[in-house]
Amino acid sequence: MGGRALVQWEHNRDNAPASLTVDLYSGGAAPADVLDEVAFYQVPYAPSTQGADERLDVIARMPSLRVVQLLSAGYEHVLPLLPDHVTLCNGRGLHDASTAEHALALILAAQRDLPRWALDQRDRRWAPRPVSSLADQRVVIVGYGSIGRAVERRLLPFEAEVVRVAGRARPGQDVHGADELHALLPDADVVVLVTPLTEATRGLFGAAEFALLPDGALVVNVGRGPVLDTDALLAQNGRVRAALDVTDPEPLPADHSLWEAPGVLLTPHVAGGSAAFYPRARAFMDIQLARWAAGEELANVVRPGARTER
Amino acid sequence: MGGRALVQWEHNRDNAPASLTVDLYSGGAAPADVLDEVAFYQVPYAPSTQGADERLDVIARMPSLRVVQLLSAGYEHVLPLLPDHVTLCNGRGLHDASTAEHALALILAAQRDLPRWALDQRDRRWAPRPVSSLADQRVVIVGYGSIGRAVERRLLPFEAEVVRVAGRARPGQDVHGADELHALLPDADVVVLVTPLTEATRGLFGAAEFALLPDGALVVNVGRGPVLDTDALLAQNGRVRAALDVTDPEPLPADHSLWEAPGVLLTPHVAGGSAAFYPRARAFMDIQLARWAAGEELANVVRPGARTER
Repeated sequence: MGGRALVQWEHNRDNAPASLTVDLYSGGAAPADVLDEVAFYQVPYAPSTQGADERLDVIARMPSLRVVQLLSAGYEHVLPLLPDHVTLCNGRGLHDASTAEHALALILAAQRDLPRWALDQRDRRWAPRPVSSLADQRVVIVGYGSIGRAVERRLLPFEAEVVRVAGRARPGQDVHGADELHALLPDADVVVLVTPLTEATRGLFGAAEFALLPDGALVVNVGRGPVLDTDALLAQNGRVRAALDVTDPEPLPADHSLWEAPGVLLTPHVAGGSAAFYPRARAFMDIQLARWAAGEELANVVRPGARTER
Repeated sequence: MGGRALVQWEHNRDNAPASLTVDLYSGGAAPADVLDEVAFYQVPYAPSTQGADERLDVIARMPSLRVVQLLSAGYEHVLPLLPDHVTLCNGRGLHDASTAEHALALILAAQRDLPRWALDQRDRRWAPRPVSSLADQRVVIVGYGSIGRAVERRLLPFEAEVVRVAGRARPGQDVHGADELHALLPDADVVVLVTPLTEATRGLFGAAEFALLPDGALVVNVGRGPVLDTDALLAQNGRVRAALDVTDPEPLPADHSLWEAPGVLLTPHVAGGSAAFYPRARAFMDIQLARWAAGEELANVVRPGARTER
């Protein structure tokens, strides 16, 4: 393929096929002298950027553009900025290891009372109390895609039992459909929400679902905040526990009552962007640039450009 | 076998072979009317009892005693209380799942900055920062017995690398000897101490070992406090991090400087006694009582009675 590639990391520039001209851009002021020729643009990854963003505005200044590569899973915000002929690829899969790991961190923190010990440590208080465990718990994974499978792989050696739920049942894979969720909740010890946000998943876990859980059950959300109904959680008043990396609203305002809700543990949307993300993203970019240079089909295409075959 | 058994849980009484007479004792005042006949005594499990203890004093009032069964791994404190003819069994293995799970909880808490988020939550502060991961980390397990293996099983699905160290090398199992530890530490990201306390392991991890670790490495101790040299850790002043379920001294006095040492995360010796312990201990006791009733060899004998074959 002709034209330049603009990527974030020296690693990918150094590993790129010799036939590619690769420049670096990690955000901020764009390299104006190369924008005319950029055909492949990897938008620099920045986990917590919000609002207006030079990294996206610069797309309008790339007349030779053919491919935009995001390293996030979400891509809807970029679609309005793309000419029809530009192919859009996302970062599906690159956050799986990081997100699944955080789900386990949240489950274990809740079961092992880690927030209590953090506060006791600050108060210089040695006061052991019995703690729960992950062992022997029945964990319902809601959203059995690649992240859900990554969560499951990490859960099983803890001698926990996993129940799989996806939008549609896949009986051959022992995956229950969302329509069976209500029947599964009364026997759940832990529920892990790892679904993307769609019209089908918005508010998926609300008052009816909380009501079906046994006392002391734990709901973990590492998907998207609005999948869980915040008011319904608050109404539980500690009867059901929660460990949330994503919230609705997000960021959570300082005066929101979720901060002090009993039995609720919060982390500020850090699941997917841990150190685990970077080596996986760099390795993906090496392969993606090699595909591009060879004229092969790209991975993770979420919207093909109008001039490519569809 | 003749004589009565005295155990802690109704579950084990209800599941005992019909040939056994089983009574219950869960600590406190002993059932005086049956002590004369008790031949098998399971000392009631109490994770955090210290000092003088009726559960052990009662041994002197059991003239028919043949077997004392502990559910803890440690047993040295009981040896002086036993007549020569009494067999002593311990709870080796029953805490493995619980302890290994806590090791993972501590590693993930440290890598994912959970104490920071707990304090931010208390301050109603949403302030994401990049976090480390367990993925891609090299974890040196010091003490590759049954708990070490249980830790390893839980680590591997996180895409971490495990390096095994035991007292003596077992080349066929890829286990390094303790004499190789110094050569391994410069490449370690995480060190997990899961050794029992012996003269060989006391102070095993001290100033020389800390000095060999790279900046930011994490040392986890779920074994015994004195295996790690507290002063050597304090001297690191945050250069190396630590997550400790056991300390030296223990319990940690309120005025000890370890409480506020930078990069140190503490839990108060709760690793082995979580909810995961109980079903495993009850299942073990079912089998042990059946062995006893059938006159079979007992499991977990740590000191045979003088009249049994050795």
